[in-house]
Amino acid sequence: MDHLVSRGHTVRVSDLYAMGWKAVLDADDFPALDNNKRLSIGQASGKAYATGTQTPDVEGQQADLLWADAVIFQFPLWWFSMPAILKGWVDRVYAFGFGYGVGEHSETHWGDRYGEGILQGKRAMLVVTMGGWESHYSERGVNGPIQDLLFPINHGILHYPGFDVMQPFLLYKVHSMDEESFSHNCEELGKRLDNLWTDQPIAYRKQNGGDYEIPALTLKPGLEKQGLDCDLKSGFRLHQMP
Amino acid sequence: MDHLVSRGHTVRVSDLYAMGWKAVLDADDFPALDNNKRLSIGQASGKAYATGTQTPDVEGQQADLLWADAVIFQFPLWWFSMPAILKGWVDRVYAFGFGYGVGEHSETHWGDRYGEGILQGKRAMLVVTMGGWESHYSERGVNGPIQDLLFPINHGILHYPGFDVMQPFLLYKVHSMDEESFSHNCEELGKRLDNLWTDQPIAYRKQNGGDYEIPALTLKPGLEKQGLDCDLKSGFRLHQMP
Repeated sequence: MDHLVSRGHTVRVSDLYAMGWKAVLDADDFPALDNNKRLSIGQASGKAYATGTQTPDVEGQQADLLWADAVIFQFPLWWFSMPAILKGWVDRVYAFGFGYGVGEHSETHWGDRYGEGILQGKRAMLVVTMGGWESHYSERGVNGPIQDLLFPINHGILHYPGFDVMQPFLLYKVHSMDEESFSHNCEELGKRLDNLWTDQPIAYRKQNGGDYEIPALTLKPGLEKQGLDCDLKSGFRLHQMP
Repeated sequence: MDHLVSRGHTVRVSDLYAMGWKAVLDADDFPALDNNKRLSIGQASGKAYATGTQTPDVEGQQADLLWADAVIFQFPLWWFSMPAILKGWVDRVYAFGFGYGVGEHSETHWGDRYGEGILQGKRAMLVVTMGGWESHYSERGVNGPIQDLLFPINHGILHYPGFDVMQPFLLYKVHSMDEESFSHNCEELGKRLDNLWTDQPIAYRKQNGGDYEIPALTLKPGLEKQGLDCDLKSGFRLHQMP
């Protein structure tokens, strides 16, 4: 925050714990809803979003997302994903019509998503702290490569509503980080923030960019690429351009 | 539930929404803790677990896990992972000393995890409902292969504390499932439950089974396997035996 402000940026912070953020998406998210009917989350979410009857906390976060040029998601990796409070932020703020269900949905156009959507043109970056060692998250590490562990977030949560997704800023063994290392890491993070608009985002393919069959949404033949060690024909990394 | 009971099994159900499960891991999880000190989750969790000062809801779920021979986790896929309430179940129930931090941690033995641990010998299976089409989650589907999307859960949350992990039971396009299809899927799920103890689990490697360098925890050279389409030298699938 200090670094961004010192560079002339305006920063809004959502400290979910300090805000007492409600993590669980449930019927209370739809105050205008008839509670006697079976809850269909997608329908209820779409109706609340379209009719301006969402809860104020969700509306506030959506407004902040629309206001921002870039969004930094900072969290500790818990069980190879986000803490529940942040997952609940996604579950609740990404309403139908805002985070998904955007654009035409037909046999010829499966929505504006994966590179298109309401948040298109904005940039997003994960800042992730971990207790484990870097080697445990390396290409052959026991936890799985961190790049792949973060794919459901980078691709499925950030690229999905349109963000350009930057390479994540990763910190390992944070429990044993000394002052010197902390200062160094602050500097490195500062550089990443300074270069947020000049660094290249991860080259995820756009769903409607011509690389996918529609409506099957499978990658077209011929898009195999030279992978890390062999020609990939499937898997997460095929969804990045070579 | 009905199917398992009809086969003579005893079933305990944790319906997290009905239970009003607290999703957010925070200082309230450690009632014996000095709240004036900075909260270190791992330390606080380990102390509460070791001294019997956890909250009753967490203790109850741990007791149920120790009681069960097999655990079925049923949830809708929200943003390519669990709903926040279930992630919060993992964050809170998997205490230090129970879900992690088990066994010797040294330069020669990095804990009892990934195939060893408190839940070793038990079986676990995901039952996952999705709105999207099967092709969207196929080997070349735009969302990424479902097998890889579930790796952080199957490997990182289930295999980690020792579960033998069964192939998941997957249901696509659930919003448009008709009665006939629903009945068919119930039958198929019934078969999977009947065969829970005779089907082969996913052949994840054990961390302490000799395949990993210690303490780097990288797969030893020579464990490349014939992958789906090429010899894998990295990635999630290398952590399954050929």
